[in-house]
Amino acid sequence: MTPSARTLFCPMALLPGGWASDVAIRLDDEGVIARIETGATQAGGERLAGPVVPALANLHSHAFQRAMAGLAETAGSGEDSFWTWRTEMYRTVGRMTPDDIEAIAAKLYVEMLKGGFSRVAEFHYLHHAAGGTPYADPAETSLRILAAARTAGIGLTHLPVFYAHSDFGGAAPGDGQRPFLHDVDGFLALLERLAPATAASGARLGLAVHSLRAATPDEMRAILAHERTGGPIHIHVAEQEREVEACLAWSGRRPVEWLLGEMPVDARWCAIHATHMTPAETEALASSGATAGLCPATEANLGDGIFPATDYRGFGGRFGIGTDSHVATDVAEELRLLEYGQRLRDRRRSRLASGPGASVGRTLLDAALEGGAAATGTAAFGLRPGAPADLVVLDGANPYIATAKGDAILDRWLFALGRESIRDVLVGGRFVVREGRHAADAAVDAAFLKTLRRLAA
Amino acid sequence: MTPSARTLFCPMALLPGGWASDVAIRLDDEGVIARIETGATQAGGERLAGPVVPALANLHSHAFQRAMAGLAETAGSGEDSFWTWRTEMYRTVGRMTPDDIEAIAAKLYVEMLKGGFSRVAEFHYLHHAAGGTPYADPAETSLRILAAARTAGIGLTHLPVFYAHSDFGGAAPGDGQRPFLHDVDGFLALLERLAPATAASGARLGLAVHSLRAATPDEMRAILAHERTGGPIHIHVAEQEREVEACLAWSGRRPVEWLLGEMPVDARWCAIHATHMTPAETEALASSGATAGLCPATEANLGDGIFPATDYRGFGGRFGIGTDSHVATDVAEELRLLEYGQRLRDRRRSRLASGPGASVGRTLLDAALEGGAAATGTAAFGLRPGAPADLVVLDGANPYIATAKGDAILDRWLFALGRESIRDVLVGGRFVVREGRHAADAAVDAAFLKTLRRLAA
Repeated sequence: MTPSARTLFCPMALLPGGWASDVAIRLDDEGVIARIETGATQAGGERLAGPVVPALANLHSHAFQRAMAGLAETAGSGEDSFWTWRTEMYRTVGRMTPDDIEAIAAKLYVEMLKGGFSRVAEFHYLHHAAGGTPYADPAETSLRILAAARTAGIGLTHLPVFYAHSDFGGAAPGDGQRPFLHDVDGFLALLERLAPATAASGARLGLAVHSLRAATPDEMRAILAHERTGGPIHIHVAEQEREVEACLAWSGRRPVEWLLGEMPVDARWCAIHATHMTPAETEALASSGATAGLCPATEANLGDGIFPATDYRGFGGRFGIGTDSHVATDVAEELRLLEYGQRLRDRRRSRLASGPGASVGRTLLDAALEGGAAATGTAAFGLRPGAPADLVVLDGANPYIATAKGDAILDRWLFALGRESIRDVLVGGRFVVREGRHAADAAVDAAFLKTLRRLAA
Repeated sequence: MTPSARTLFCPMALLPGGWASDVAIRLDDEGVIARIETGATQAGGERLAGPVVPALANLHSHAFQRAMAGLAETAGSGEDSFWTWRTEMYRTVGRMTPDDIEAIAAKLYVEMLKGGFSRVAEFHYLHHAAGGTPYADPAETSLRILAAARTAGIGLTHLPVFYAHSDFGGAAPGDGQRPFLHDVDGFLALLERLAPATAASGARLGLAVHSLRAATPDEMRAILAHERTGGPIHIHVAEQEREVEACLAWSGRRPVEWLLGEMPVDARWCAIHATHMTPAETEALASSGATAGLCPATEANLGDGIFPATDYRGFGGRFGIGTDSHVATDVAEELRLLEYGQRLRDRRRSRLASGPGASVGRTLLDAALEGGAAATGTAAFGLRPGAPADLVVLDGANPYIATAKGDAILDRWLFALGRESIRDVLVGGRFVVREGRHAADAAVDAAFLKTLRRLAA
């Protein structure tokens, strides 16, 4: 018997149909759930030390940006915005080596695990060295991301990004963007190069187009016609009002309107941000089957705006959450800020609960679990047979958790406690976080410290 | 020499004039800062293990509400709002004993210390037992708050609350409000009773009027004419739009407008929330010298709205932060949400930085330090002679903190890390939190668990 072919015993667990007591989760030797029994006994099982809930997928990450989280909070001489932040981000990028990229991603992924995520979709556009100088292996930085995910033990959906222009209409890229650039053939070759590497690493491969600014329609069509990843397709869209205006000037249509009209958007797609939509666009995106990739902490930090989540859910739209620039790295803060943005806009409470009597936390968790799975190419998710045993064990010794029942456990975690209520995290049945600690903490921190010291020098 | 008459050595510390290296803080035997030297040597001093910043005062707390944090996130059958939340809150209150009140407050105050607060202004209106039955000692619940603060070792500014009516114009109170009620004479007697008790407990005494709904103008004038606390005066005002409408219907004026026109509002006053103000009210409140008591996490959770902080700061207004209903209990989350609310409204970044080149975190921390001191009756604050040594030691072993310089340390704490970056907290020179732990954790948790079990039963 391998270490992962075993039984986990949960005093309480959140199954797809709701909370159940005395749950035995039988794992196969790949860490996939083979069978679930309720009203079971602990006999032969390993007892998990608190309520067990499914871990979420983090559907949007630019790992390297974690190194600058909190370092772009100095006011400039004019109006600060997303665009002034981006200039600072380009400056940081220009100094990063492959070692730095791996060290930052490993630290970040450990932080994500501790925050309740078991998988991350890495929207990866930092392909080349400073000034755009190619590495000997064009997949160098992608391989570093794969290595970081292995170190952390987090599931990875790797999304190499196509980025060729600085603005709508195929505008020439700026100097700061040189480390990101490919032409279509180079990008397709990168995807081909990465297919076996991701498979060997236990990761999944998808792809991203950075934005409608960064790719022409013809380039997008060529990529979609020839790529063979079979994985998710992500794109940043309608994050900023200036982007909406520029898209209107270029095409006469708004970004989401253009995307849905011109590209074959379906359940394989994830529209990152989609902050600025008309009601018609909101309904159309919801109907497309795509996932909206919401990153509430980053969208607040960057002053993007508030996603029309109540309308979007009313139209049956699917969403998941991502930590994007990583000013937050945990499930609770993202879900809480998503709900709070709606409350501040509407001056009402319980904006995203599924209906009367429903817990806001439960609704948010269920929705983000489904959307995160869709956006990371995860067919089976949640605590059900066939799904990987990606689990969060909340701290049963925490008085707030110990005395809550059912969905109130989730509401306390998400609205009153945050990441401190997470005790253990399992990915594919394997403990990656135990009592708040990761086995690689010391090594990961040492490498990360070295990188931050170098970047700060 | 008593244990507190000693020297603390800080490798880095945030002094009123800015960051300094090798700082020796000489304490007198009361834990007050006697002298500060920069460029000092460690000789004879106790070395603090990371950057040292002043702890803040938490200017608004209803301690008992921490027990229900996260338990009011279930959607009702109609539109959920502040008002449906309040009904749930009244239900919880009706079941609390003095033991419960003390156990909850002790747990909360320990959590606050770990979150970077060294003092709390307790806006205390839970005076009587269920149904309004008086306790044998009318100060019973206040004495429990004093005891909880002593257990935690947090500074306390106790604010007994006058509450007599359910709405503008002296409307009769509802059943759920009976545990809160006093007439003017009973309230003044309570203040007299508490003056020696707070002094003996090392606490300060002020007072509060719950809101313009809860007291008539004549009652407010009588209290102000006869109270002898010498401490701060707090009042909830303009939290909800419905309250603004009711005040207009009653008086023809908006709540802040009425308050500033009819009451002697000055630097002794703290206007809690003040969310809904016209630009004229915003300017008038700023000019009054009062402190605006902002509670960003609660104001988001309750769907109150976004305080006009950029305008208010433009008019030179003073503000501090409070955790109110305690869905958050830490400095970082409150300050971050304050700034994020402004960003989401304006779709720009760096809303509250004091000027070009200024760190947002530094500006927020400086402002909330000053406002929190004013609202809690603290004459001397910050790292200067004459002020109590109320200190937060950030974790110098955290790579993000270890590699940041100057105000970037604050921005990383407030915008990228949160409470996990706090290592130690000292109140009056005494360690109350060491390496994230409080000496009374086990006892406080045991009592709190018992209370939560009873309330959940």
